[in-house]
Amino acid sequence: MKNSRMEMEQLSYRNDKEAGLSIDVAVIGGGISGLYAGYRLLSGTYGGDSQPPESIHIFEGDDRIGGRLQSIELPDMNVTGELGGMHYDTSHQITATLIEDIFQLDHTPFPSGDPAEYTYYLRGQHFKGSDWIDAQKRGERLDVPYNLRETDKGFRFDQLLHKIVYHVLMADPWFVANYGDRIEKVNDYEYAFRLTASQWDDINVNWTYHQEGSPFYGMKVRDIGFWNLIKDQAGQEGYAFIADTEGYYSNTMNWNAAVAVSYMIGSDGEGTYRTMTSGYDQIAYSLAKDFTDSQGAQLWTGNRLETFTKATDSPRRYRLTFYNTEEQAYWTVDADSIILAMPKRSLELLDRNSYFFQSDAAPMLNQNIDTVFSIPSFKLLMGFTYPWWKEDHGIEEGKASTDLPMSQCYYFGTDPSNNHSLLLASYNDLSTVPYWNALIQYEGEQESAGAASPDRTGASSYSAAAEKDRGLLVKEPHTLPGEKAPKHVVDEARSQLSEVHGNHVPEPYTARIKDWSRAPYGGGYHNWRTGVAMEAVMPFMRHPLPHEAIHIVGDAYSGKQGWIEGAFCETEKMLQESYHLQWPTWLSTSYYLGF
Amino acid sequence: MKNSRMEMEQLSYRNDKEAGLSIDVAVIGGGISGLYAGYRLLSGTYGGDSQPPESIHIFEGDDRIGGRLQSIELPDMNVTGELGGMHYDTSHQITATLIEDIFQLDHTPFPSGDPAEYTYYLRGQHFKGSDWIDAQKRGERLDVPYNLRETDKGFRFDQLLHKIVYHVLMADPWFVANYGDRIEKVNDYEYAFRLTASQWDDINVNWTYHQEGSPFYGMKVRDIGFWNLIKDQAGQEGYAFIADTEGYYSNTMNWNAAVAVSYMIGSDGEGTYRTMTSGYDQIAYSLAKDFTDSQGAQLWTGNRLETFTKATDSPRRYRLTFYNTEEQAYWTVDADSIILAMPKRSLELLDRNSYFFQSDAAPMLNQNIDTVFSIPSFKLLMGFTYPWWKEDHGIEEGKASTDLPMSQCYYFGTDPSNNHSLLLASYNDLSTVPYWNALIQYEGEQESAGAASPDRTGASSYSAAAEKDRGLLVKEPHTLPGEKAPKHVVDEARSQLSEVHGNHVPEPYTARIKDWSRAPYGGGYHNWRTGVAMEAVMPFMRHPLPHEAIHIVGDAYSGKQGWIEGAFCETEKMLQESYHLQWPTWLSTSYYLGF
Repeated sequence: MKNSRMEMEQLSYRNDKEAGLSIDVAVIGGGISGLYAGYRLLSGTYGGDSQPPESIHIFEGDDRIGGRLQSIELPDMNVTGELGGMHYDTSHQITATLIEDIFQLDHTPFPSGDPAEYTYYLRGQHFKGSDWIDAQKRGERLDVPYNLRETDKGFRFDQLLHKIVYHVLMADPWFVANYGDRIEKVNDYEYAFRLTASQWDDINVNWTYHQEGSPFYGMKVRDIGFWNLIKDQAGQEGYAFIADTEGYYSNTMNWNAAVAVSYMIGSDGEGTYRTMTSGYDQIAYSLAKDFTDSQGAQLWTGNRLETFTKATDSPRRYRLTFYNTEEQAYWTVDADSIILAMPKRSLELLDRNSYFFQSDAAPMLNQNIDTVFSIPSFKLLMGFTYPWWKEDHGIEEGKASTDLPMSQCYYFGTDPSNNHSLLLASYNDLSTVPYWNALIQYEGEQESAGAASPDRTGASSYSAAAEKDRGLLVKEPHTLPGEKAPKHVVDEARSQLSEVHGNHVPEPYTARIKDWSRAPYGGGYHNWRTGVAMEAVMPFMRHPLPHEAIHIVGDAYSGKQGWIEGAFCETEKMLQESYHLQWPTWLSTSYYLGF
Repeated sequence: MKNSRMEMEQLSYRNDKEAGLSIDVAVIGGGISGLYAGYRLLSGTYGGDSQPPESIHIFEGDDRIGGRLQSIELPDMNVTGELGGMHYDTSHQITATLIEDIFQLDHTPFPSGDPAEYTYYLRGQHFKGSDWIDAQKRGERLDVPYNLRETDKGFRFDQLLHKIVYHVLMADPWFVANYGDRIEKVNDYEYAFRLTASQWDDINVNWTYHQEGSPFYGMKVRDIGFWNLIKDQAGQEGYAFIADTEGYYSNTMNWNAAVAVSYMIGSDGEGTYRTMTSGYDQIAYSLAKDFTDSQGAQLWTGNRLETFTKATDSPRRYRLTFYNTEEQAYWTVDADSIILAMPKRSLELLDRNSYFFQSDAAPMLNQNIDTVFSIPSFKLLMGFTYPWWKEDHGIEEGKASTDLPMSQCYYFGTDPSNNHSLLLASYNDLSTVPYWNALIQYEGEQESAGAASPDRTGASSYSAAAEKDRGLLVKEPHTLPGEKAPKHVVDEARSQLSEVHGNHVPEPYTARIKDWSRAPYGGGYHNWRTGVAMEAVMPFMRHPLPHEAIHIVGDAYSGKQGWIEGAFCETEKMLQESYHLQWPTWLSTSYYLGF
C-alpha cells in the first residue's frame, strides 16, 4: 500500500478493509475545510456535557492533501510558486491567527505592487495604471478604445465601478436611511466606502434597485446579475471596459450583484495581502500535522468516497463506501457522522442515486448545491533564467492585465543564487480557460482523480525530504505538482506576453500548468448565483437534513468565496452548531463569521 | 394515467408494471433520432435472414416528444414560431426526403433574407451588410471599431473568415496536392470553396497547420481550437470582430478547428434553407404517427430512464428501470437491445454507477461522451401587434447581429388577418446565456424534467384539437410551450432591440422563452472538442461495448451537429450496422452518411 495513508505505523488499509473500520466522525476531503474540521474537533473545547469524538478520520480522494492550495518549487529556483490559492488578507482573523500565531509559519507581504504601475493592454493599446490618474490631474480624460458613455469617460475601470456602486447604493432610500453616512464621493473620480462584512450582509438582504426607467427597477439587487447591473449603468461598452481590465472575468460575470459588489468593494478594516514564504499550502500541512499527531486521528489519501447509506447492521449510523485508487478496490467505513468538506463539483460526482440526494429534502439539497457557479480557472507558471520584466521593463512586482486570452500575469520573485525568476505567465478564468485547455490533450477525466499522469513521473526536484519538512511521512519521492506545459502552449503564451509587453519575451527554461476546471474540483473558486437567499442557503448546507448527522462545509457556499477564510468560517459555525464546540479561545469573540 | 402514453387502447401502464413489460427493442428518447429509429426498424427492409423486431417501444422522459424541436403558436397569431431547431438545408437528403416526399409536409423557404440587408451593431456603431461591399466597390476599406491588422481591414467578417481558411488550407502541401484545385481566390475580398462533405472528412483527418513561426506550426488542425486558429491568423481583435458579428458565439468558440472550418464554409452542393409551414416539429410528429400506427410499436411519454442492468431472471438481455413522472413511481422493462437516442447531458444524467458506465470499456465510453461541448442556447420569442421592423425600418426578413447580450434577432412572419407579427427577439448562446437566465428564477432543476411549471398552466391557445391535427391523441389540453418571459426580461430585450435598431421598439403583447441549457438537454446543440478522432469516436458511440446490444445515436456525436440530418445519419448507420437494415429505398445510394 503506497500513498494510501500517511501514518505507517497504524493499521493497514487491508486489515481495516477486512475488519471493517468503525469511527465516530468521517471527514471527506483533505482540503482546508476538512483539515480544519479534524483539527478543531480534536483540539477544541466542548460545551456543557458534550464529549469530544474519540475517532476522526479524514479521507482524501487525491494522492495529496491541500485541495485547491498547491504550492510548487520549479526546478533550479528557490522561489515558491502557487498553482492554487496564493494569498490571504490580514483582516481574515482565523487564517491570520492560525498562520501567524498558532503555527507560526514564516509569512511575507504578497508582492501586489502598485496599481499605478500595472500594465494594461486593451484592444491592441497599451496603458499604465497611472495614465488615468495623470490625465485626471491635468484636467483631461484619458481616451480608451471603448465606446464609453460621455459621463463615464476618463475614469479608470476601478473608479468607474466605484462610481456605479455608489450611485446604485445611494439611489435606494433604505440604504441612505441606514448606511448613507458610510459612503461618500471624495472627488470627481473617487469614492470611499466604509461598510463592514456584517453590514454588507444586511445590505445583501435588503438592497433594492432604484434606477428610474431601468428594466430592473424595483428588483432586489441580489436578483440581478452583476453584468446586468453594470451594463444597465454604463452600457455594454462600459461593461466590456471594466471586465477586460479587471483581470478576473469571474469577478464581472453575471453572478449575484449584491455579493459581487461587496466582494469588489471590500469591507471596512481589510488590510493587506500576505503569503507564506515556503508556500501557501503550508497551512494545510500544518493543520494535517497537528491533526495526525492527535489520539484517534487518521488521514487517508487516495481513498475516494463513492456513496454512503444508513447502516443497518452496525452500531454506527452510516456506512460509507470508498474507492482505494492504489488497489482499485472498494471498501467500507462505518461512522456516526459525516462532514462533506467538498466543493460543488465533488458533491455532484458522488452517487446521486444515494438516499442523501434522493430523500424528501433532496430537491432542496440539489437545488442549493446549484446556487453557486463553479469557475474554471487556469494557471501557467514559467521559470526564466532572469527577470526580464525587471531588466527590460523596470517592473519589480505586481501584474499586467489584458483582453488577450492570457488575461493577466503576475511578476514573482528571483532566486538570488542564480537569478532564476518566477512568472505567473497566465492566470485566466471562465471564458478564457477553453482557449488554453483545448490545446492540451489531457488524460481522460476518469484517470485524473487518483493516479499521477505519465508526464509527471521522474520530472521532479520535489523530494521526499521536502515533504518530510512539511510534517508528512511519504513512501516514495513526490513528483512535481501540476502538469507539464506543452511547447505550443508555452510559445502561444510567450507570443501574448510579448504583445502585452511590447517586445520579445525570452524562452522560459521550465513551465507548469494547472487547470482547476478538471474533476474533481470543477473550478478554482465559486460565485453565488442570482436569486439566492444566502442567509438561508448557508445554514442549510451546513446541515441539510435536520434528522441526519451529515454536513457540508467549504468556501464554495461561504460569504468569502475563493478565500480559505470562507472555508474556516463555514466549518467553524458548523462545528459550533452541530458538535457543541465552543468559540475558539484564540479568536476575538466579536469576529463576524457570516450567515 | 394522463399523458404517459399516446395510444389509449393499449395496455395500461399499471398493467404493464405489474405484468412486467418484455420487448425486443427499447428506444430511449422521443427526439428525432429515437423516432427515426422506431420508424425505420418497423418500415425498413432487412438483409439476409434477419427478421424485423416484433416489439419496439420508445420511452420519452418529458411529457412531449420532439426533443430539441419545439414549435409554438403564440396567442392571437397564425404564425408558427420555433423554440428549437428551425430550418433544414435542401442538400440534407434524409431530412428533405422525409419531409417533402414521404410525409409530404407543407414546406416553405426559410426567411433568411439578404445578408446585404442584415443589420450589425458592434461596439456602439451601426452597419449594414452592404456597407462593406459598397466600400469595396468604391475601392475603399470600411472602418470598423476593431483594431484589425492592416491586411485584414476592409473585409466583412465572412470574407475575413474565408480569407483565413483559404490561407490555412493552401499553406498545407498535402491539401494543395489533393484538393488545391477545389478552392480559389476570386478577387481581393472573395474566395470560392468546392469541397464535398466526404472531402471535408478527409481533410479533417489529414490537415496540418503550416503557418511559419506560429506556436501551432506542425500540429494537426483538429488538435487546435477555432479561436486559437483565428487569433493566430488575425489577432485577438480580428477574432473579436468575427465572433461579435457572426451571431452565434458557439460557431467561433474554441472547438475543433477542422470541424469548425468545414461547418462554417459548408459543403459543395448545399442548397437553401427551408422549413415547415405548420412548425418544424411536424417532422417529429409525422415519424411518431407512422411509428405508432405500426404493429408492435408503442410510444411512452413521461417515463424517464434511470438505469439498466443485465437481466438475470428474464429471457431478455437487459432490465431497464423507468421513473413514471405522473405516478412518481419506478417500474421495469425487459428488452433485448437498447438504443440510447440522447444527447450528452441526458447520458450524463443516467445512473453513472451502472455497469454500462463502469464496465471495462467504460473509461473510453466516459471519455468519448465528453468529446463534445454542450452549448447553452436561449431563445426569446415576441409577438407584436404590428411588424415594426417592416413599418419603421423597411426590413422584410433576415436578421440583425450585435455584441450586445441579445446577440441576434430574426424577423419572422405577419398574420395577415390581424397584422400580429413574430420576432425571435434574441437568439443567443454560450457566454451570453447567463446574462438572461440569471434574471429568471426557474423552478429547481429537479422539477424541470417532467412536470409542467406553474406559469405554463392555463396560459394556452394551444389546443388538444391542434395536437390531433399533428396525429396525436391527447388526454388534456396542451399548455403553451416554453416559459413565460418575466416583464424585466422583456423590457431589457426591448432596450437592446431599441439600441440595435436606433429607435424605440414598442411593447410586445406576448413573449415566450426557452433555455436549452437546462436539464435534461444541457444545451441546444453540440460542438466537437479539439483532439478528437471523429472517425473513431462516431462509430464507437454507435456501438460502445462490442459484446452488448446497446447503442448511442443522435446529432450530438454526428458530422452534422445541430441539424436533424446529423441525427438521421448516425441512426441510419447504426441501424444498418447493428440491426441489418438495408439502405433505404428512398435514399440515393451515393449519399454520404459520414464517418
